[in-house]
Amino acid sequence: MTLREARRDEVRQIVEMLIDDDLGQSREDLADLTPYLQGFDAIAADPSNTQYVWEENGEILGCLQLTVIPGIGQRGLRRAQVEGVRVKGSRRGSGVGQKMMQAVMAIARERGCDIMQLTTNKTRKDAQRFYEALGFTKSHEGMKVTL
Amino acid sequence: MTLREARRDEVRQIVEMLIDDDLGQSREDLADLTPYLQGFDAIAADPSNTQYVWEENGEILGCLQLTVIPGIGQRGLRRAQVEGVRVKGSRRGSGVGQKMMQAVMAIARERGCDIMQLTTNKTRKDAQRFYEALGFTKSHEGMKVTL
Repeated sequence: MTLREARRDEVRQIVEMLIDDDLGQSREDLADLTPYLQGFDAIAADPSNTQYVWEENGEILGCLQLTVIPGIGQRGLRRAQVEGVRVKGSRRGSGVGQKMMQAVMAIARERGCDIMQLTTNKTRKDAQRFYEALGFTKSHEGMKVTL
Repeated sequence: MTLREARRDEVRQIVEMLIDDDLGQSREDLADLTPYLQGFDAIAADPSNTQYVWEENGEILGCLQLTVIPGIGQRGLRRAQVEGVRVKGSRRGSGVGQKMMQAVMAIARERGCDIMQLTTNKTRKDAQRFYEALGFTKSHEGMKVTL
């Protein structure tokens, strides 16, 4: 059981996990992997970003992206942010997500982060309960705009 | 009128704007600038992060931090994120914040970002109206945990 950096040849498996989701179905398209590989390459080239996968017995069961964000406010608070947290459909509810999140929280602490933050669509009530069980609080509005 | 990269000798002015705020008062301390300067240096060393100030007639009237976040999901969606958006107390309500946000949205588009996102404390109702007027929607929960 380990949270480790994803390899480029695992991008298809990551996108498959992103698709297998109420919101993911409408916004992903596996017919052309090119934009996903470009996204992976941009993450791999950026020391502030890491794409992780959760592996058990040689099988990939989950994924998430970690972003470390330096800052001036709150006495130079360094933030960890996670995005694209997913567990393989067949393994949801088995504790994989919890173990994966605890692992990335430990990594973030090691990298000097003081808090972890994320946004989750307001329709994802199960996700909110999941994060609350890990200690997260819904203290903020997550606001977005298309550019 | 310009949104430009902040200089290191402007960190005190930035922190003064961060302090002049209901939430900022309790979590900043100007007695020792060291952690703020360390935060500035970490931003300056990170090509994904930029600390901006809004300058008019040689005076700094606002500040914000931009983070560009690559990603795999949503066909390699590239996100822009802003943090620490503040307008000098004496100039609030004068349109500075709106011009500053429109400028950073243009910069984010030039840098290939598809969306802009931020989190704002649920108690900041004025801020939420301000961002909604710029097109942002409160579609997400912003969740945080101390590490």
